Amino acid sequence: MTETLAQIVAAVGKDVADAHRGAGKVADYIPALARVDPNRFGLAVITCEGETAEFGDSWMPFSIQSISKVFTLTMALERLGEDLWVRVGREPSGSRFNSIVQLEAEKGVPRNPFINAGAIVVTDAVLACRTPEDALADIRDTIRRLADNDTIDVDKEVAASEAATGFRNYSLANFMRGFDNLKAPVEDVLQTYFHQCSLRITCRQLARAGLFLANEGVDPLNATRIVSPEHARRINAIMMTCGHYDASGEFAFQVGLPGKSGVGGGILTVVPGVGAVAVWSPGLNDVGNSQVGTLVLERLASRMGWSVF
Amino acid sequence: MTETLAQIVAAVGKDVADAHRGAGKVADYIPALARVDPNRFGLAVITCEGETAEFGDSWMPFSIQSISKVFTLTMALERLGEDLWVRVGREPSGSRFNSIVQLEAEKGVPRNPFINAGAIVVTDAVLACRTPEDALADIRDTIRRLADNDTIDVDKEVAASEAATGFRNYSLANFMRGFDNLKAPVEDVLQTYFHQCSLRITCRQLARAGLFLANEGVDPLNATRIVSPEHARRINAIMMTCGHYDASGEFAFQVGLPGKSGVGGGILTVVPGVGAVAVWSPGLNDVGNSQVGTLVLERLASRMGWSVF
Amino acid sequence: MTETLAQIVAAVGKDVADAHRGAGKVADYIPALARVDPNRFGLAVITCEGETAEFGDSWMPFSIQSISKVFTLTMALERLGEDLWVRVGREPSGSRFNSIVQLEAEKGVPRNPFINAGAIVVTDAVLACRTPEDALADIRDTIRRLADNDTIDVDKEVAASEAATGFRNYSLANFMRGFDNLKAPVEDVLQTYFHQCSLRITCRQLARAGLFLANEGVDPLNATRIVSPEHARRINAIMMTCGHYDASGEFAFQVGLPGKSGVGGGILTVVPGVGAVAVWSPGLNDVGNSQVGTLVLERLASRMGWSVF
Amino acid sequence: MTETLAQIVAAVGKDVADAHRGAGKVADYIPALARVDPNRFGLAVITCEGETAEFGDSWMPFSIQSISKVFTLTMALERLGEDLWVRVGREPSGSRFNSIVQLEAEKGVPRNPFINAGAIVVTDAVLACRTPEDALADIRDTIRRLADNDTIDVDKEVAASEAATGFRNYSLANFMRGFDNLKAPVEDVLQTYFHQCSLRITCRQLARAGLFLANEGVDPLNATRIVSPEHARRINAIMMTCGHYDASGEFAFQVGLPGKSGVGGGILTVVPGVGAVAVWSPGLNDVGNSQVGTLVLERLASRMGWSVF
Repeated sequence: MTETLAQIVAAVGKDVADAHRGAGKVADYIPALARVDPNRFGLAVITCEGETAEFGDSWMPFSIQSISKVFTLTMALERLGEDLWVRVGREPSGSRFNSIVQLEAEKGVPRNPFINAGAIVVTDAVLACRTPEDALADIRDTIRRLADNDTIDVDKEVAASEAATGFRNYSLANFMRGFDNLKAPVEDVLQTYFHQCSLRITCRQLARAGLFLANEGVDPLNATRIVSPEHARRINAIMMTCGHYDASGEFAFQVGLPGKSGVGGGILTVVPGVGAVAVWSPGLNDVGNSQVGTLVLERLASRMGWSVF
Repeated sequence: MTETLAQIVAAVGKDVADAHRGAGKVADYIPALARVDPNRFGLAVITCEGETAEFGDSWMPFSIQSISKVFTLTMALERLGEDLWVRVGREPSGSRFNSIVQLEAEKGVPRNPFINAGAIVVTDAVLACRTPEDALADIRDTIRRLADNDTIDVDKEVAASEAATGFRNYSLANFMRGFDNLKAPVEDVLQTYFHQCSLRITCRQLARAGLFLANEGVDPLNATRIVSPEHARRINAIMMTCGHYDASGEFAFQVGLPGKSGVGGGILTVVPGVGAVAVWSPGLNDVGNSQVGTLVLERLASRMGWSVF
Repeated sequence: MTETLAQIVAAVGKDVADAHRGAGKVADYIPALARVDPNRFGLAVITCEGETAEFGDSWMPFSIQSISKVFTLTMALERLGEDLWVRVGREPSGSRFNSIVQLEAEKGVPRNPFINAGAIVVTDAVLACRTPEDALADIRDTIRRLADNDTIDVDKEVAASEAATGFRNYSLANFMRGFDNLKAPVEDVLQTYFHQCSLRITCRQLARAGLFLANEGVDPLNATRIVSPEHARRINAIMMTCGHYDASGEFAFQVGLPGKSGVGGGILTVVPGVGAVAVWSPGLNDVGNSQVGTLVLERLASRMGWSVF
Repeated sequence: MTETLAQIVAAVGKDVADAHRGAGKVADYIPALARVDPNRFGLAVITCEGETAEFGDSWMPFSIQSISKVFTLTMALERLGEDLWVRVGREPSGSRFNSIVQLEAEKGVPRNPFINAGAIVVTDAVLACRTPEDALADIRDTIRRLADNDTIDVDKEVAASEAATGFRNYSLANFMRGFDNLKAPVEDVLQTYFHQCSLRITCRQLARAGLFLANEGVDPLNATRIVSPEHARRINAIMMTCGHYDASGEFAFQVGLPGKSGVGGGILTVVPGVGAVAVWSPGLNDVGNSQVGTLVLERLASRMGWSVF
C-alpha cells in the first residue's frame, strides 16, 4: 500500500526534527528575530487538488522577510509587465560580494528581483505614486487574499528594528536613486520595504499563498487567475536561479525545485503542477538559508519524486 | 486533430528560419569557425520513446565547443562522485566580468563546471593520470557511444587554432595550477580541453547523446544506465542555473528548460521525462549564445508546453 | 639676469592662457557649478618668505569642493592623532571603480582621506559631538584663519544642491554607518560635508591657507604652529599619493609635487620648503581634475625646478 | 659637534638591529629564499659626493627580486620613451586583490611598471627582438655598470625555482598576451623576467646602482648621464606612488622617500639631491616588504631630515 502525502510529510518531518531540530544560527541582527525559539519547526504542504499535510509548528506565525519578494514581484509584473525588466535584471548575481560592484558596473540596475537591491526596485514599482501606507496595505491584502486568511499582519517591532538598522539598504537605495532607478523618495520605498518584510505568516498560510505558482497562475482552489501562465513560469524560473542568494545553484542542485528563502527561517517552494510547500526553522546555514528547512525540502522532494529535473 | 511532434518541429523550424535565418554574429576568433555559413540552421528532437523529428541542416556536423562540457562533467562525476565538488562549485557565476575575481577570491575553485575555468578543472579530473591522447579518445568514445554514432571526431584544424589563440585559457589554467587545483601539467589539460571542444557533431547526434539526461540517467533506447538518477538530475540543475554563461537566468526565464550552449552555435536542451532537443545556427547574440537557436527553443518549448515550471 | 618669480608666473600663466584657456569640461551636476564661466583662470603663488605672484582671476572666489578635505584632515589629525588611521587608511585607491568594492572588502574603512568615503569619515571625526552648525563654523573659521581672510564663506545654493543630488554620498555614508564607522547621524555628517565643500575661496586665499604645509607645519608669515612637522609631512605624503583621484600617479609623474584638486576646478599644490601654489580653471579633464590647472602646474614646476624628485 | 653620516648610520643600524633583528617572516615560496638566515641585516648609504656609510651585512649578496624592476624600467624608458605608457600605466594599483580585475577592465594594460603584470610588460619591452639570453646579459651588464661591479650575477637555482612555481606570472603573462600586450613569446618574456629577479646584489652595490636617480639622471661619481632629468624624476615618482605594492602609501607616509622593495628583503631608496640608500633584512611584513628594512629607513630618514615632504 502506498503511503499518503500526510504519512510521508509526518515521517520526513519527524526524522529531520529528531536528528536536526535547532541546527543552524538564528538571525540576530534585530532583537525580535534573535528572540525566536530555535527549536521551532513547521512544515506545510498543499496540493492543487486541495490536499494538505502539516507537521510541527505549521500553525505558528514567523517573519516572512525575503519571501515577501515573491509576492511583490508578482504585483509589479502585473502592473508593469515586461517594462519591469528595464529596471531590474533576471540573472543570478554570483557571490554576495559582487552585488554592489555589479550595481555600479550595470548603472544601478540590480541583477535580479530577489537580491535586496532588486527587491527595493520592485517595491518602488509597487509603490507607484501611492503613500507607503496605501502600498503596504495593498501588499498585505494581496498576501491575505492569496493565503485566504485575513489575520496576516505586520509586526511593527520588527519593522521599526529593520528601519533602525537597515543602513545597507539605505546605502543601496540611495545608490540606485543616484542612477534614477527609484521613482519614489528613498524613505517611502524603504519604509514600505521594511514593513513588507515584517509581515508575519504561518507555513500553512504561506504554502496556500504560493499555490497559484504551481498551477500556471490560477489559484486552483477558487479558480481565480492571479497572473498569466507565462508570468507564473517566469516567477518560478527566477526562484530557481536566484531564490537563495549565493546558494541558489546549491538549492537547484539539492532540491531541484523553485524556492525562496527568508532570514526568518522560512522557505516557500513550488512543485509545478503539483502543489506548494512551506517550511520554517529559524536556524540559518552559512549563506543565510534555513538549515533544517533546506534539509527537509531535500528529503521530501526526494521521497515524493518532485524534482523538476 | 492534434499535430504530431514532426509537424510542430517543421512548423516552428520553418517560421523561425523564414523570419530570422542568419541572424546574430558568427564566432570569428579562429578561421575555421569564421568560415561557417551563417545561414545554416538545424533542429533535431528525440523523445524517450524514440520518436524523432528534424528540420533543416540537422544532418550537418558543427563544432561542439562548450556543449562538450556536459559530457566531461558526466564522466568526471562518475569518476569522482561528490569529491568533484571540492574542486569546482555549482553556483552561477554572475557576470562574465567577475569570473577571474571570484577565482581569486575563492582560491582557484571555479564557480561551476560550465564556465571555462570550471570546465578545465573537470577535464583535469577526466584526464586522471592518462596521456592527453588517451583521455581524448575516452571523451570521444563516450560521446560516440551516447550518440550511437562512430563517425564523431575532432576537427584538428579547429583544435590547433584553439591552442594557438587560447591565451585566456592558459591564463586561467596557470592561475588554478598556482592554487594546486590542477593535477596534470597545464599543457596536457589544455590540449585535451581544446580537442574536446573541437569535436564535430550533428544536431541529430547531439540530441541522441543527451537523451539519457531526460530519462533519469538511463539511455531509454537501449536501457543502459549512464549515470545515477541523482547525477542526471544534478547535471540538469547545473545546466539550468549555469548553462548559458551570463544569460543563464534569461534562458531559464525564456525557455524554462536545462540547456547548454556553445560558441559553435549549437544548444543542447533537455526536457525531463520527455526527450532531448539539439539546435544549431551559427550566429551568436551579445552574450555568446546562438541567437536563432535560443529563439527556436523558446517557440518550440512554448508550443509543446515543455517548460519545467 | 634671472627672472623673478612674478615674471615666471606671468609668463607661464600667459602662455597657458593663450593656448588653452577654457579647455576641459565644467562640472555640471549642479546648476551653480555649471554656470561658472569656463574661461576663468587664476593662479597664485606665495613663498615661505612671503613673496607673492599672481595671474588672471586669482582674486575671484570659486567653489573649494574636495580641496576642503586637506583642511578637515588637518583638523582631524590634530584632534585624534594616530587614532584616525583606525577609521581611514592612507593608501591610494586604484581606479574609481574599485572604491566601493574596497569599502566592502575592508569593512567600511575607506582607503584614504581624500576619496569621498574617507573624507566623510574625516568630517565625522571633526564633527565630534557637535551640531553641524558648530562644526561647520569651526571648519570655516580654521580656513579663514589659515587664509588670513574673514570673508571666506559657504555658498548656500551650492550646499543645498549638493545635498539634493548627493545620493552617492548618502549611499557611502549609510554603508559605512552599517559598519559602525560613522559616529554621528548620517544626516549631520553629510550636511557638514556638503557645506564644507561649498566654501568659496580665491586662489590667493587658498595658496595662503596651504602655506603651513610647505613649512613643516608652521605658518611662516606669523610663526604660528598649525600642526607638528610630522603631521605636515604626512598630509603632504597623502596629497602626493592620493590627491587626484584616479590620476594621482599621473600628477606625481607630471608635476612631482603634493597637491589636491576639486571639481570646482581648483588645485592646491605644496612646494616643500618653498611655498604654496593655487590654480583655478573650471574645465575638468577625463578624471575630474582641472585640465588647464594641471598643465600650468606642470609648466610652472618645470620652470621653477620645483619637483620633489 | 654634529654627527657624521657614518655615525648616524651606525647608531640607527645598531639601535634597530638590537631591538628588531630577525623580525618578520622570510619568503618561503621557493627553497633558496627560505634558507636565508633571518638575522642578516645590511645597510648602505652613498651620497652624490661619494661619501659612503655602511652597517652590518652590507657586503653580502641577496636576491634582488622586484628591485630589478627599477632598472628594467630605466632601460625600457630609454628604449621606448613615452611610447612605453601606451602599454603600462603609472597609477597606484589599489589593493593586491584588484590587480587582475583592473587588468581585465583595462584590457591587459597593467596599472604601473612595479606590479608583476607591469614589470612583465616592461621586460617584454626590454627584450625587444632579442633572445632571452641576450636580453638578460644586457640587464645584468646594465646593473653591473651602474653598480660599478662586475661580479653581480644570476642565482640559477633561484631562477629555476621561480620558473617552476611561477604559475601566477604565467597566468598574468598569458592574460596580457591575449590582449596583445606582449610581443615576444610568453616563455621568452618570463624566462628573462625570472632571471632578472634572481640577480644577487649587495646593499653596497645596490645603493651605488641607484645613485643616478638621486642626481637627475647623471651618475655623480663618473659624470655619466644614464637617463634624462625628466626620466629620473618620473622613475622616482613611480617609486613613490607604486614602489611598495599595497603599502606604497604607507611608505610615503612613514618614510617620505621614493623606494622599491623586493621579497628578498631588500629596499632601494632614493634621497633626491642627496644620495641613495639600500637596506636588507629578509623578514617581511604582512604586505611583503622588509619589516626591519622599512623601520630602519623610517628612522634614518627622520634622523637625517631626508623626507621630500
